Amino acid sequence: MGWPSSPTTTHRNLTSSSLNDISDKPEKDQLKNKFMKKLPRDAEASNVLVGEVDFLDSPFVAFVRLQQAVMLGALTEVPVPTRFLFILLGPKGKAKSYHEIGRAIATLMSDEVFHEIAYKAKDRQDLLAGIDEFLDEVIVLPPGEWDPAIRIEPPKSLPSSDKRKNMYAGGDSTQMNGDTPHSGGHGGGGHAVGDELKKTGKFCGGLILDIKRKAPFFFSDFYDGLHIQSLSAILFIYLGTVTNAITFGGLLGDATENMQGVLESFLGTAVSGAVFCLLAGQPLTIISSTGPVLVFERLLFNFSREHDFDYLEFRLWIGLWSAFFCLALVATDASFLVQYFTRFTEEGFSSLISFIFIYDSFKKMLKLAHYYPINSDYKINYVTQYDCMCMAPTDANSSDVYTDPLDSTFIWTVNYSDTRLNASWSSLSKKECLKYGGELVGTACNFVPDITLMSFILFFGTYTCSMCLKKFKTSPFFPTTVRKLISDFAIVLAILIFCGVDALVGVDTPKLIVPSEFKPTSPNRGWFVPPFGGNPWWVYLAAALPALLVTILLFMDQQITAVIVNRKEHKLKKGAGYHLDLFWVAVLLAVCSFLGLPWYVAATVISIAHIDSLKMETETSAPGEQPKFLGVREQRVTGVFVFILTGLSVFMSPILKFIPMPVLYGVFLYMGVASLNGVQFMDRLKLLLMPAKHQPDLIYLRHVPLRKVHLFTFVQLLCLALLWILKSTVAAIVFPVMILALVAVRKALDYVFSQHDLSFLDDVIPEKDKKKKEDEKKKKKKKQGSIDSDMEDSDYPYNENVPSIKIPMDMMEQEPFLGDKASDSE
Amino acid sequence: MGWPSSPTTTHRNLTSSSLNDISDKPEKDQLKNKFMKKLPRDAEASNVLVGEVDFLDSPFVAFVRLQQAVMLGALTEVPVPTRFLFILLGPKGKAKSYHEIGRAIATLMSDEVFHEIAYKAKDRQDLLAGIDEFLDEVIVLPPGEWDPAIRIEPPKSLPSSDKRKNMYAGGDSTQMNGDTPHSGGHGGGGHAVGDELKKTGKFCGGLILDIKRKAPFFFSDFYDGLHIQSLSAILFIYLGTVTNAITFGGLLGDATENMQGVLESFLGTAVSGAVFCLLAGQPLTIISSTGPVLVFERLLFNFSREHDFDYLEFRLWIGLWSAFFCLALVATDASFLVQYFTRFTEEGFSSLISFIFIYDSFKKMLKLAHYYPINSDYKINYVTQYDCMCMAPTDANSSDVYTDPLDSTFIWTVNYSDTRLNASWSSLSKKECLKYGGELVGTACNFVPDITLMSFILFFGTYTCSMCLKKFKTSPFFPTTVRKLISDFAIVLAILIFCGVDALVGVDTPKLIVPSEFKPTSPNRGWFVPPFGGNPWWVYLAAALPALLVTILLFMDQQITAVIVNRKEHKLKKGAGYHLDLFWVAVLLAVCSFLGLPWYVAATVISIAHIDSLKMETETSAPGEQPKFLGVREQRVTGVFVFILTGLSVFMSPILKFIPMPVLYGVFLYMGVASLNGVQFMDRLKLLLMPAKHQPDLIYLRHVPLRKVHLFTFVQLLCLALLWILKSTVAAIVFPVMILALVAVRKALDYVFSQHDLSFLDDVIPEKDKKKKEDEKKKKKKKQGSIDSDMEDSDYPYNENVPSIKIPMDMMEQEPFLGDKASDSE
Repeated sequence: MGWPSSPTTTHRNLTSSSLNDISDKPEKDQLKNKFMKKLPRDAEASNVLVGEVDFLDSPFVAFVRLQQAVMLGALTEVPVPTRFLFILLGPKGKAKSYHEIGRAIATLMSDEVFHEIAYKAKDRQDLLAGIDEFLDEVIVLPPGEWDPAIRIEPPKSLPSSDKRKNMYAGGDSTQMNGDTPHSGGHGGGGHAVGDELKKTGKFCGGLILDIKRKAPFFFSDFYDGLHIQSLSAILFIYLGTVTNAITFGGLLGDATENMQGVLESFLGTAVSGAVFCLLAGQPLTIISSTGPVLVFERLLFNFSREHDFDYLEFRLWIGLWSAFFCLALVATDASFLVQYFTRFTEEGFSSLISFIFIYDSFKKMLKLAHYYPINSDYKINYVTQYDCMCMAPTDANSSDVYTDPLDSTFIWTVNYSDTRLNASWSSLSKKECLKYGGELVGTACNFVPDITLMSFILFFGTYTCSMCLKKFKTSPFFPTTVRKLISDFAIVLAILIFCGVDALVGVDTPKLIVPSEFKPTSPNRGWFVPPFGGNPWWVYLAAALPALLVTILLFMDQQITAVIVNRKEHKLKKGAGYHLDLFWVAVLLAVCSFLGLPWYVAATVISIAHIDSLKMETETSAPGEQPKFLGVREQRVTGVFVFILTGLSVFMSPILKFIPMPVLYGVFLYMGVASLNGVQFMDRLKLLLMPAKHQPDLIYLRHVPLRKVHLFTFVQLLCLALLWILKSTVAAIVFPVMILALVAVRKALDYVFSQHDLSFLDDVIPEKDKKKKEDEKKKKKKKQGSIDSDMEDSDYPYNENVPSIKIPMDMMEQEPFLGDKASDSE
Repeated sequence: MGWPSSPTTTHRNLTSSSLNDISDKPEKDQLKNKFMKKLPRDAEASNVLVGEVDFLDSPFVAFVRLQQAVMLGALTEVPVPTRFLFILLGPKGKAKSYHEIGRAIATLMSDEVFHEIAYKAKDRQDLLAGIDEFLDEVIVLPPGEWDPAIRIEPPKSLPSSDKRKNMYAGGDSTQMNGDTPHSGGHGGGGHAVGDELKKTGKFCGGLILDIKRKAPFFFSDFYDGLHIQSLSAILFIYLGTVTNAITFGGLLGDATENMQGVLESFLGTAVSGAVFCLLAGQPLTIISSTGPVLVFERLLFNFSREHDFDYLEFRLWIGLWSAFFCLALVATDASFLVQYFTRFTEEGFSSLISFIFIYDSFKKMLKLAHYYPINSDYKINYVTQYDCMCMAPTDANSSDVYTDPLDSTFIWTVNYSDTRLNASWSSLSKKECLKYGGELVGTACNFVPDITLMSFILFFGTYTCSMCLKKFKTSPFFPTTVRKLISDFAIVLAILIFCGVDALVGVDTPKLIVPSEFKPTSPNRGWFVPPFGGNPWWVYLAAALPALLVTILLFMDQQITAVIVNRKEHKLKKGAGYHLDLFWVAVLLAVCSFLGLPWYVAATVISIAHIDSLKMETETSAPGEQPKFLGVREQRVTGVFVFILTGLSVFMSPILKFIPMPVLYGVFLYMGVASLNGVQFMDRLKLLLMPAKHQPDLIYLRHVPLRKVHLFTFVQLLCLALLWILKSTVAAIVFPVMILALVAVRKALDYVFSQHDLSFLDDVIPEKDKKKKEDEKKKKKKKQGSIDSDMEDSDYPYNENVPSIKIPMDMMEQEPFLGDKASDSE
């Protein structure tokens, strides 16, 4: 097969330019042709020439393949050398017929498989076989209940022509028949299970393999990140991380009486995140405080106080034990268990986390509305009746409540002069008034105008704006680059727009306040937690028990997020690193325990958002060509920068204080909703509300009875509802353990559903791939070509491949005008 | 052609049920088949039976047409009698091939044209000719850059098969070739110009014809309105009308010092509207006060005051003259001039009015924000410092401003006792305080909390909600009926939802307040304007001059709206009534002038909204069948009810007072945006921002160079910009006259664009129709069948109809199994 197999362009040329004009130099207007840059470099042309002449009685046909491609001057539209010539001359009067033949040949030559055959053909028989193969692949649509004027959409991914080529090359021997259109089938087949998750059996075998796998990419992890898209991802994820740090910091401070506060949260996030993104196996994973850890800390603090333990020291020992357990899991390659997390478990978990995100963002807004109550009884006319005065305490003993004796002198002083008293009191601000034990009297005291409503405007506005801008990529307006830029920066733009709206209206909405001083939140603790001295010796050992729980909690949270990050849909190329990730989580756990910082583990929703903001697509060039998802920009730059910025936030408070909290809650809502995108479980939930005729053409709907699909969805929904209820009680601490229950439920489903159904419903081969595979399968079946209707023939009762109604190009056979190499006329 | 031409169902039956089972009674499971109800009543079946037998050496084929359709028991899936039988028996080993032949025959029999041929065929040649015709229509798609697994969408409207039938019946003689795929072409071809707009030449000829045309529909105009959709339309349009009445009433009251106020506006709207909808030619048109009339009234009132004329009397005479002129226009069939309003003029006008609607709704919101200013300096901590006190006037002389001496006694009384004074002043409400000349002192006085922000939430919320609910019809969720109901009641639902939100939050947003007392707004006028006595006699004659302006103004406003209502896209069936409409406008003009009520004329945007809310579509039944737009529910019920309700609003104020004004402004915004839908001008505006490859498949883009399309759009845009500027100045009064300028500009375009281009760009044949026509044209061209690619071949250089590569069903011809009537084997 020494022939060059370069793509060929076909071109119908109907101008009667005299052959004398032909030069081997491309002409000016040829070079100017914009179409040229869409062609591959070594493209060659076929020229199809038809015409009427008066000196012929019957048509004369020649198909010429030149030994060497030559430039034929202005004959071709673009300056590419011509390899093939098709010439048809015939008697006058049948020009349209000749033209149609020319079109047919041009169509034939534009077929990838046929033009390869044309390159390789040794004689006329080869060409005829090629035409036959082509005709076998032709689809015939009968007239009737459809509109022949429709334009067929260019497909998202082209069906490969490999099968056709193989058939031509190798014959029918590869024929496959059966019901196994997809690999795996059962549970474990979900995510990319390569050698990443094989049990090596050696000590630290998995970890060593992970390092070996990731090390070669370490430098590319940095220069791969140098792209404008990274900037958008950094800003977006940074804001998410900071908001998370503040929220969890506040909650932790609340739960632990400021033993861990907002500053510790910032410091911990920055240090742990940066180290993780710099050195872990999956730098796309974003680590953060998570709900279950918070619940654990709350319980731990209460327990410590009740039993008079030193909280931080107790926690240090739990952390150390837990880190030890995690390292033990790393050493024994325990992460191979991840294989049992199928799509069912994984989507259940990620959906639940997304729901919690959405729920929390609304909860935060309602809390805000509670904090700034609206005066719904306000009447404009009675503006004169609304006020809020600070009054002197009616009870003289109320001065007992003063905690700060220094400040209260002022009040005691004025207390003596009765006349000046009222004036002084009323000049106090609300805070001062309450501090000095004054009473706020008046109808306006309990209400705050505008802030709540403005917050809701910002909240919904940011969410809607982010959504719309993100979708802008698929809108038909503006050139692709502009659309892509807007879509990439959607969230940053939305935040900026609504910060602008907020500044414009000027209402004093709650803003993002980051700590600006670098010292522990509580004055009762230092930067280092001494490991001994606070608690009796047996506590150091007993800490192993709660540590076990923490270990399960971290392992589950970490690995299921890692599984989601490694989904096949994301097309990651640099390999997984489950063991390495867990190793770093354990190390950071120990470090954070020593420093009295919160514990960190992979956060599902933010990690998904991170990946979403780094998705790459092909630059579309040819009209109608669909952008193809290429993969995710796998690098460490965005992650590292996000956490460096988080650390520097302490110095950025003058800028950050312009960002209203409701805007950030809106971003959280967006993250929650966006992370539900493309989750098959959500698609199936939607199916529940859809009449059958509107259902999309999903692969599992083609193969699994709708009833079964709904049953599967229902089981999954039930599991999530139970988990949600669990999460709302104190039992929340065992929440990650309950994810294991999902694995058990999935296992139990094996007895309810057939393996065939499950392989379609619980499988992470993305839709497209599977459809493609099936197409190929079908193509094979139909190999022999037949009048094809669009009826489903997958459950075809006949297996023989006997063609029934063939559509031979009989006219061509009757008038064999297909000469080889040299032209031969009839 | 005595044969019944009933549709035939095809059915492949592959079960080997013994022929003994055949009974002529339908079986139980046949009757239960749900598919049955989708079939027409007189449907007949063709049964295709194929099978292998061991006693045959070559295939045996029979095509049987029975003289009488008979019930063949369980042979058919549904209990319909069988007319045709296709039987193919052959030797063992080629079952798949037989099956394919069976499929091909079934496909053939399902073709509308072929099964008609099968009914009529006299011999085998007829059938073969039918097959040939079918094959000519077949579309062949080569393999390559598309995905054969795609599912072809069912078309919005099926291409008609009439052309194919004619061809079969009449031969090729009707062949048409040329560049006139659309009727009309030039200017006047826009809307349905039937005899409605022909100049009769007789006195009142047009009016009489209008009455004759509309009278037969008068009763159906009432019972056609009895539909749930009408309820939604009534509520929607009622709220729009009431809001309009209040807005214009307020503005008129402002302009005429309450000589015409809100109550007059309500009364006038109710009376004129009800009469118009009851008796006019186009009951779908909604009449209302319009902008130009308002400007005229303002100028007229100022002129009257400056020259000491009696405003109402002067106005009465103008009204009478104007009514006279209008009647003269009716009598002389002047409405035929409407024909010169092409799509260019019509879309320009309606777009402009829609823009004004959108602009006005925002202006109203900004005005509201101005009226309820937000205190952007509010700090929660300083709540104690914000108040608003009513203080006694510092200047004793301020009591001079009291207009009502009776009320002021209270102040005078308390003025003497100095100690009680301040207490009394501070207990006054804002209104009282200002009334008695008190001063409002304090930081809170100039601000109103929450109302503005809540109003914006309601405004945008209502708009967004209406939009989303309206689009719900095309969402894939819920059954069609539910979706349709939600979509029909979209605006009403949105209004209810946001009234609920408003009630829930409880902020005192401005509500819809309708007058509740029935008396003229101004005490200086009665219900009847006496025609003589107020002004010198020559004023009665001079009034004819401004009346001329009013006449042009009304004529233009009325007729261009009527043209828009009569757009071909709306598929109105009961005919137009331009003359009759103008007659009633004139009569109502005179009546309103006598009663001192505002003048009314057709309002474009509300009329479009009215039509949109009454659109009918087919109930889709078969899966994949697209709903078809059937037309508009043409009736008088909705209009009459709307205006009766408007009249009764005076008594409905206890209910209406729950509707916040911002919600209604949101509805206005929706109306403005919705009325831009489907306007070709807007589509073309969007094209300006669209890269060529994303442009939709519009008919004019297929035929007119993009540069020309853009130029046309640009000219139109420029015209609108000029009109907008004009509208913003005092010259607004000549605004409707300027519409005439649009006609002139359109005329001038004849010299810039070719007639070919203009016929595509300025033509009101809706897209679909035209495409269909073109499809038919194309089909004719391709009549002889050829390998068809999806290349554009409209500018095809050959006209001959010589087929080039035919796809005969040669196998069928070689094995002629097509017997006629009785079965004949080979």
